[in-house]
Amino acid sequence: MSAESPFGLSSVVLLVDLYELTMMQAYHTYGMDERATFDLFVRRLPQCRNFLLVAGLGTVLELLEGLSFGDDDLAYLESTCLFERDFLDQLRGFRFTGDVDAMPEGTVAFALEPLLRVTAPLPQAQLVETLLMNQLHLQTLLASKAARVLLGARGRRVVDFGLRRMHGADAGLAGARAYWIAGLAATSNVLAGRRYGIPITGTMAHSFIQALDDEMEAFRRFSAVYPETVLLVDTYDTLEGVEEAIRLATDLGKECRLRGIRLDSGDLAALSREARRRLDQAGLASLKIFASGDLDEYRITHLLADGAPIDAFGVGTRMGTSADAPSLDLAYKLAELEGLGRLKLTANKDTWPGVKQVWRRRHDDGTPLGDTLGLADEDHPGEPLLVPVMRGGQRTEAGRETLAASRRRAGDEVARLPERLRRLEPADPSYPVGISERLREERREVIQRLHQRRALAH
Amino acid sequence: MSAESPFGLSSVVLLVDLYELTMMQAYHTYGMDERATFDLFVRRLPQCRNFLLVAGLGTVLELLEGLSFGDDDLAYLESTCLFERDFLDQLRGFRFTGDVDAMPEGTVAFALEPLLRVTAPLPQAQLVETLLMNQLHLQTLLASKAARVLLGARGRRVVDFGLRRMHGADAGLAGARAYWIAGLAATSNVLAGRRYGIPITGTMAHSFIQALDDEMEAFRRFSAVYPETVLLVDTYDTLEGVEEAIRLATDLGKECRLRGIRLDSGDLAALSREARRRLDQAGLASLKIFASGDLDEYRITHLLADGAPIDAFGVGTRMGTSADAPSLDLAYKLAELEGLGRLKLTANKDTWPGVKQVWRRRHDDGTPLGDTLGLADEDHPGEPLLVPVMRGGQRTEAGRETLAASRRRAGDEVARLPERLRRLEPADPSYPVGISERLREERREVIQRLHQRRALAH
Repeated sequence: MSAESPFGLSSVVLLVDLYELTMMQAYHTYGMDERATFDLFVRRLPQCRNFLLVAGLGTVLELLEGLSFGDDDLAYLESTCLFERDFLDQLRGFRFTGDVDAMPEGTVAFALEPLLRVTAPLPQAQLVETLLMNQLHLQTLLASKAARVLLGARGRRVVDFGLRRMHGADAGLAGARAYWIAGLAATSNVLAGRRYGIPITGTMAHSFIQALDDEMEAFRRFSAVYPETVLLVDTYDTLEGVEEAIRLATDLGKECRLRGIRLDSGDLAALSREARRRLDQAGLASLKIFASGDLDEYRITHLLADGAPIDAFGVGTRMGTSADAPSLDLAYKLAELEGLGRLKLTANKDTWPGVKQVWRRRHDDGTPLGDTLGLADEDHPGEPLLVPVMRGGQRTEAGRETLAASRRRAGDEVARLPERLRRLEPADPSYPVGISERLREERREVIQRLHQRRALAH
Repeated sequence: MSAESPFGLSSVVLLVDLYELTMMQAYHTYGMDERATFDLFVRRLPQCRNFLLVAGLGTVLELLEGLSFGDDDLAYLESTCLFERDFLDQLRGFRFTGDVDAMPEGTVAFALEPLLRVTAPLPQAQLVETLLMNQLHLQTLLASKAARVLLGARGRRVVDFGLRRMHGADAGLAGARAYWIAGLAATSNVLAGRRYGIPITGTMAHSFIQALDDEMEAFRRFSAVYPETVLLVDTYDTLEGVEEAIRLATDLGKECRLRGIRLDSGDLAALSREARRRLDQAGLASLKIFASGDLDEYRITHLLADGAPIDAFGVGTRMGTSADAPSLDLAYKLAELEGLGRLKLTANKDTWPGVKQVWRRRHDDGTPLGDTLGLADEDHPGEPLLVPVMRGGQRTEAGRETLAASRRRAGDEVARLPERLRRLEPADPSYPVGISERLREERREVIQRLHQRRALAH
């Protein structure tokens, strides 16, 4: 148990798969510290994703800058009997000194495109695999899901209520960060508010009403303390709850600063229509209707198609676990070592060799037309998407981008996507990502080299 | 950014939904600090789960014991302009002083049964809602999934390879803990090894082979450093990789301590059969076949049904995200306040009032026959499942159980389940959980009281 971190996460550097460390020791043994480039990319998009929204870069760059082995870490590694003393001594001075080029957060990305590439001595680039993947996977997964929820909500306010059923503390915190980049309006997660400056929000729980046994009394008390609150009306009987809210608002008269009511269960379309009718009839057109409870982009789309007069959505579990696609097929693969391209030929998991770049071509109005995946020293029309974010282990200016800038980019980029990609159904055709002729040639050459090696070896 | 915790998770107490704090201030304003009991339970099991395996209790009890507001937390709360000074002053001395009764970790549980109940002054019991849910949800979700993977593997070794695509750092770490309770053999997560004493394991990555361009040379080097390693054979061509492994083992002769080979892609059933045949033919019957790559209980079951001679499984993403059921319908609801039962009547989300207990009846051989959910002061046949784990904010002896004890319980409990519950298909009939007559009576009385209140109010 570590005193300093209640979740036991103080030691970032040990948050790795064991094989990163055993491979490091083998690299160390054989003096294999050549300059390596690894790509981080998604092999295939989930069927229910037309694009990815990149997030998590700022988090990983900060972690990379601070990466080091503490005495406790080294003592633990020694206790496993898997490591030699001189290797552990070398770890004592470890710092990440590599370069990182990456798509800025809020960039829209597609399958096969490196979201990030690391260039560093082989052992360093190897060590960071699991940490980079774990963090970029989480935030990109959740930002990509949130982008869809926002598209479904068609401009209505969406807030994050996910913390309780997201996968642990880090998912809740880093997820709120990813959501903010994607464009959510606020989060219920107070720590995310403190750490990232994200607006925090919330209404009341059923327990507050249950505690008083009397809905009207609960509404009175809570709104006396928080006059601009949203009243949760479904603890006992939703429409009776709406009537209580109307009574309170009417009693308050001109003093009323209530923002609205929240529906959290039942037939949200029918209930919201009836609630709207009653609120309007009572002259309370300014009171908003807020909905929550098992929502996601599909249900929000159905509600709106059904004419539900809902003004804002609180979205939790289904977004927070990316329920329809709870993981991305994210990989981190060696692409070049000592200037020579490297690849895997594994069935359905083969890779593209070389230090690569992605160029995005656009219409005059900014709509992306297609991307080209090529070697970084090529010249292609369009904007190169990977930019230098870390050099020699230190973040560049671009690597210190504010969340506000990432959020603006995400908003712009998603808005400029072709209509077929912004729909929730699979886009047909999907977004075109072409492979440059030189990259194809590089791949052929690497394969040829491998075959020659093999022929010689046998 | 907090210096002490790289993931920004140093402040557990702010890892809450905002409404816990605003409700607390409202409770404070009205002096509502009566003794409250909240239940934490799962409303409905996912269709693809016949039982839950409880995990995470030790984690949350440790967090509850340390819960307090730091100066930075209070400064942040003040900056939101949502809280009065005297409320914030009160938070400064906050400690959780409540009682917790819970099912020990490794207990098998079912829908509606309280996995845990908190009895504390209302504001305290309210504050801990989100944290308790977030942590118990994660570990119970993952332990329950892992139990199925182990059932699918029918006694074969299963290890955790999930960290890279689990949802963040806490999911990877707490998940490894939950897996250990469920009965996995080891984890690749080094930090989990350090923090929880779980055996760590790993083989090699494709990058090690790619880095040398030459599989045989890579095998030689890695096994020289780690003679008992498992060779990853699918980087270029799986069966050629198997031949390289055979050559190395044959060259090593009596010195050979290789544990086996790992298949990570392709048709694992066909490849494992052919690899087994070749290994056996070469007199290497002692070399094991290890499989990984998109595995879960369903795929493992198919592989074994298909006669795949696989000795051990590395399971990652699909178990680590509980892909077929990425969340549980977990709730935390007020059940009693000041000795009076409380409930929600919300459609499909109604609750049972009162301080409750669960009794489990068993066959002579230990097979559970059925559970009874009743009021805690009732007397029912069978073993009461909720035990005191915290009193006055301090863990009891039972609240300090070792992971080893939890793991033993989980193993015993899952093994004793009726066959139909241990199958991967939905059990028919599902496990019977009866509601006691007195609990039904209590519910009728509470509803009657609510109606009388309501009639009076109007």
